[in-house]
Amino acid sequence: MKLQVALDRISLNEAINQATKLNGNVDIIEIGTSLIKDYGNMAIEKIASVASKSQILVDSKTIDEGAYEFKQAFSYGADIVTVMGAASYQTLTACYEVAQQYNKTMMIDLLNLNHEQIATIDNFSQAIYLIHHSVDANEELSAVTEISKFKTLHEHIQRIAIAGGIDYETTSDLSQQGVSEIVIVGSKIIKSKNVIDTTRKFMEVLNV
Amino acid sequence: MKLQVALDRISLNEAINQATKLNGNVDIIEIGTSLIKDYGNMAIEKIASVASKSQILVDSKTIDEGAYEFKQAFSYGADIVTVMGAASYQTLTACYEVAQQYNKTMMIDLLNLNHEQIATIDNFSQAIYLIHHSVDANEELSAVTEISKFKTLHEHIQRIAIAGGIDYETTSDLSQQGVSEIVIVGSKIIKSKNVIDTTRKFMEVLNV
Repeated sequence: MKLQVALDRISLNEAINQATKLNGNVDIIEIGTSLIKDYGNMAIEKIASVASKSQILVDSKTIDEGAYEFKQAFSYGADIVTVMGAASYQTLTACYEVAQQYNKTMMIDLLNLNHEQIATIDNFSQAIYLIHHSVDANEELSAVTEISKFKTLHEHIQRIAIAGGIDYETTSDLSQQGVSEIVIVGSKIIKSKNVIDTTRKFMEVLNV
Repeated sequence: MKLQVALDRISLNEAINQATKLNGNVDIIEIGTSLIKDYGNMAIEKIASVASKSQILVDSKTIDEGAYEFKQAFSYGADIVTVMGAASYQTLTACYEVAQQYNKTMMIDLLNLNHEQIATIDNFSQAIYLIHHSVDANEELSAVTEISKFKTLHEHIQRIAIAGGIDYETTSDLSQQGVSEIVIVGSKIIKSKNVIDTTRKFMEVLNV
């Protein structure tokens, strides 16, 4: 399982500092939507330039103009780019084709989709499907249970990422479950006292 | 009826040039999603600074983190900001509240929503609802017919904008119909030989 750390709602300078620290210490550094909308492609270019030892995910949340947005993000240094599952099937297809052309990866954000809707877009075999684990909405449903349920309903989907209130313990549980490819952590790492130490603790538990 | 002209998939310099020409000659200048994702808030700031005689619409296509994205766009100079109708109801509410606080406007992009879905979000009384007129999908359905049908199904919705393959004739028809508040034109103006002349022709037909 891979660890993805999200940089979001901070200044570009702070994001560059954090990315420099995280470089090579995490598998994937996420450039959050806020950094893209605040600073544009410059954010991708600058963060990618200080983080060559980790993969770069651009959380573009594309919902239209798929080919254009994916080409831009890949050409500025992204390895993985996100598209909304709520986008049209044509947009998803356009994004997927660009990802294949660039030999890069599309991540589909399943935010606000029900299982019937997910079933209509489950055939992008190389794409990663991102599940939002809502801590508020599913108080009694653990991330592990949510992944199990998802996997039962969508057996075609091979590549799964999970985000939302993920802590150290949940990461350990998900790692043992062995279904998810990527676990995404934000504030639990970025807002910790020592980002590198916290990252290492998360990384240790991933590879048990 | 107001005319909104969209700037999209061009360089920031070209967008600033076009905005300078359009300033005061159109009601609303749209900063397209591509300009936001390519250049960030700088695009809003620079375009707003050369276009003080028109309103500025930022096509943010927000789908999450509503309060953050709307605050940023308004603080950099937007008068109207877009949110996806496909966003969660909580996100729509957050965007609406920020728009009310700033005494500015939220536009809800109805892309990929069916009429049942639209009915669940029809109560933001001050918001503008954006209909995408798909020229491909509705070959036999004119923009005027589409607006009539929409108005029958969603009588609560007072403020309507329409985009998608809108030409001079369609604008004239929509103006006579008198239901839409805003008509959005992109390449028909921006890619014309003389942008100012073409804009004036569109503006004349609007106010008949």
